[in-house]
Formats: sequence, structure tokens, C-alpha cells
Amino acid sequence: MYGCAIIGSGAAGVSAALTLKALNVSFIWFGSRALSQKIRSAENIANYPGLANVSGAEMSRAFSAQIDGAEIQITEKTVTGIYPSVGKYTLLCGDELFEAKTVILATGVEAVKPIRGELEFLGRGVSYCATCDGALYRGKEIAVLCTQKELEREVRFLASLARKVYLIPLYKNVEITEPNVETVKGMPLEIQGKERAERLVFRDSALEIDGVFLLKAAAPPSAMFSGLETEGGHIRVNRDMQTNMKGIFAAGDCTGKPYQYAKAAGEGNVAAHSVYHFLQ
Amino acid sequence: MYGCAIIGSGAAGVSAALTLKALNVSFIWFGSRALSQKIRSAENIANYPGLANVSGAEMSRAFSAQIDGAEIQITEKTVTGIYPSVGKYTLLCGDELFEAKTVILATGVEAVKPIRGELEFLGRGVSYCATCDGALYRGKEIAVLCTQKELEREVRFLASLARKVYLIPLYKNVEITEPNVETVKGMPLEIQGKERAERLVFRDSALEIDGVFLLKAAAPPSAMFSGLETEGGHIRVNRDMQTNMKGIFAAGDCTGKPYQYAKAAGEGNVAAHSVYHFLQ
Repeated sequence: MYGCAIIGSGAAGVSAALTLKALNVSFIWFGSRALSQKIRSAENIANYPGLANVSGAEMSRAFSAQIDGAEIQITEKTVTGIYPSVGKYTLLCGDELFEAKTVILATGVEAVKPIRGELEFLGRGVSYCATCDGALYRGKEIAVLCTQKELEREVRFLASLARKVYLIPLYKNVEITEPNVETVKGMPLEIQGKERAERLVFRDSALEIDGVFLLKAAAPPSAMFSGLETEGGHIRVNRDMQTNMKGIFAAGDCTGKPYQYAKAAGEGNVAAHSVYHFLQ
Repeated sequence: MYGCAIIGSGAAGVSAALTLKALNVSFIWFGSRALSQKIRSAENIANYPGLANVSGAEMSRAFSAQIDGAEIQITEKTVTGIYPSVGKYTLLCGDELFEAKTVILATGVEAVKPIRGELEFLGRGVSYCATCDGALYRGKEIAVLCTQKELEREVRFLASLARKVYLIPLYKNVEITEPNVETVKGMPLEIQGKERAERLVFRDSALEIDGVFLLKAAAPPSAMFSGLETEGGHIRVNRDMQTNMKGIFAAGDCTGKPYQYAKAAGEGNVAAHSVYHFLQ
């Protein structure tokens, strides 16, 4: 049982992890060892105090080196569900379970808005996690929306199972060469179906499918668990970064604008201190 | 007339200045070119994202270089009063006036708590500003509580005017050699008097004086202007860093715990964005 589970590895997650470490709180950190794609792709960051006019890649390298120096581990798993129990939360990553007394949501704001039908068919043909649900689609036809190049290994994994994969890449330099993968251009507008997802609809066309994988850096918090208060698409928090749910804190872009690295880092720090006080 | 006046040059002030600059808002920044003494004297900062295990001196150098690179000026004056007028605020620095449409208070938390009587006798024998009020004490006997070495030049200035200066230094390596300055040990507990300050009381002794100068990095916001809502000694703000007064924002340690550089930098960033939206 961990004192805390941090979900997300952008500036807020990095800050929360460094501070929990400094406060000697045990934690597990779900994210990407490549950290946030959004940071890495920023051209120039002019107003982050301490790092003058860095590129996103430089900031990301500075964060990585600092995390390694502090001997902090990142667990590269996608949290697909969070369930409350007495005095703790259970986090589901595919078929693996983890337990933590508190959670810090630092999931960022998806550049990709949810598609119509996405939450409706979640668990009924829609999945965020290739390793969790891939086996369900052995020999079937699936659509895979992939938001970043780092997730191509999950596309390959799905291609090894499914008969046919329609890949909708939202990044450049696609390097998938599996013969059963067909790249599709355009952004899907809606997932349709009766009991389960059956059709992925584009502006002028549609794909008949058995399932849809949405490979994102993080599942939207509203999909991870229910009951979390939001406001205008952001998680509602107070000045201590506490959400409406006891023991669940949030930090960074997911709590609202401005979408700024300094704000995210500050909120990650505050959330970590709130976790510390909560655990006392 | 400036779009904004920032008061304080710790991490929150630095962050606010960098962000206002990036947002192209005109501003005047009151603080110390040596930045925050608190930062400079920190031994090791382990959890500021992007700067791994830096000393306070290193962080301060990084901030300074970044400010210089962004061509941002610091005005080394002490704001002693803030007065509202229609659509703007007037800031008093001794006998100089400045005007700004908004204010960001980033004054930090005084390591030195106010002494009993300090606010009561402010302007009646108690002053925060040597250059503002020194001339009133020509030929008189004064006590000078000095919180940091950088302010010794103000002590010397006062010694050039007053007949006798009782210096209470709260720092090491005092280098004041003026013959009319007598160093006093201990921390004063109370300022007493009838109409005006007359006596500075210590645990086992008292000094009869004509005035008391309290030389701090920043005057407490409650002394600068009235009407500001506080809570437990901190300025009350919402998630946008807005205080209860329209156009007045606050950021950093002065808004509450945790007293952390990342939090301060994040809040300075948010306050700057709020100023930007306020001015639209």
C-alpha cells in the first residue's frame, strides 16, 4: 500500500513526485518515462523561472535528470479505473491492482477532446488500454486512434492480435509497417452502436469495427472514476488542490487555466504537501 | 501609468515579472536587485522542478540571469503605501508617487513577526523607510531594527542624520562603524508610547527613543494599505490569486503555506495571467 499514487508525468506530476520524495511519503507514479509529450514538443518556454528560454526538449531533459538523480521510478502503466474503499483507493491498470491512501491526478488536458460516444461505450467496445483489453479483440477488426508516437508499440501489440487495424495517427512520421494495419486520415467524429461500439464515423465516411482503442497519454479522469466534480471540463479544486473527494487531489492543466508549466509545478508541490498533511 | 506594479522579488515576483513581460503588459517591479534574501540563504533546494539540488545562491543567480536576459528592470524602492483611486492605484515610495492599474503583492512572509505596537504607532514614530522618514529624526535618538545586511546602507544614512542610533541587527557580520551607532542585542518585544512611539521594550530593559525604524525587505501588506482581507496572517486569495480588492492580486508565501519556491513561482504566473485578463 502506497501513501500516494500520482497519475501523470507532466510538470505537475514531476513536481508532486519530487516533493513527496522530499517529504518521505511512499508513492507510485504512473506516467511515461519520456515525460509529457506536450512539454517535449514546446518550441520555447520563456517564462519558467530558473530555466531561461529553454526548448521543451531541454526542460524535459532537465526534469528527467532530476528524477533520476532523486532515484524516483516511473511506472509505465495506464490507470484505467480508480475505486474507493475504506481509507484507501484501488487503482486498476488492466488486470493489475495497486492500492494507495491518496491520489494526485496530474493528467493534463487532453489536446484531443472526447469523441461523441466515447464515454458512453467505454468498456463496451471502447478502451484506453491496449495491454488491458487487446486480447478481447483477437482476430477482430478494430480502429486505433493513437495520439503520440511513443504509443506505437501499443499499436504493434494490437496489430499482433487483431485481424485488421485501422490506424488513425494524430502525430507525424508514422512507422508502423505491419501488413494488417491500414492508416486512415481524418479525425473521427462519433462512435456509434447499439449495445456495443459498432461504427466509427468520420466526416464523409465510416468504419465498421468490433472495437475502438483510444491511445492517449492518460485516460480522462471522468472515465477513470465517477463522482469527481468538474467545472468547464476541469477538475474542481480548492487552494489546497483538494477535489470534492477525500484523499483525491489534482494539479496542473487538469485543474484549469492558465496552462503553464510554472502553475503546474506549483500545484504539484501544493498537492504533495496536502497529501502529506492528509496522511498525518 | 503602468498596467501593473509588482511588489517583491522572491520567486513569486520573478515569475510574475517574466510572465507579464511575455504577455506584453507594462509594469514596474519594486524589489531588490539581489532578489530575495530568503532564496539566497537557502542551503539546498531539492524539489524545484528543473533545477536539481541547487543552492539558494545558484537559484538566485539563475533568476537574475533570466531577468537580465529578458531585459526586465527592478526598481529598488520600498513601497510604503498603496491608495485606491478610480480605475488605478497610487503607490507611495517615500515622497515619490507611481500609478498602476493593478498590483501584484509578492511580499513574502516576514521572518520577523510584527512587534506589539508596530502597526499602532506606524506613521507616529514608527517607519519602514529610512529615505522616506529619516529627515524627521535629524538630531534625535532612534532605534533601528535591521533584518538584513543589504539594508546597512540605510542604517548609515540614518546615522548621518540622527544624533544617536541604537542598532538591533538580525543578521551576522555587522559592518557599521559610525561612532554614534550603538549595537543592542536581543529582540524588542513592544513599542510603547502615548501619542507617539517613545519607548522600545526588551525582555529586561527598555530604550527611550524618538522613533523606531524597522528595516525589512518589504513592509507588511497590512501596513501598506487597509481593507485587505487576511486569514491567519496571510492574504486571502481565490484560485485566480485575486484578493478581496478589485485589481489587487497576491502570490507566493504571503498567500499562505506551503512556503515553497515552486508554489510561489506558480502563483506569480497565475497572478500575471489574472492581471492580463483584468486589463482586457
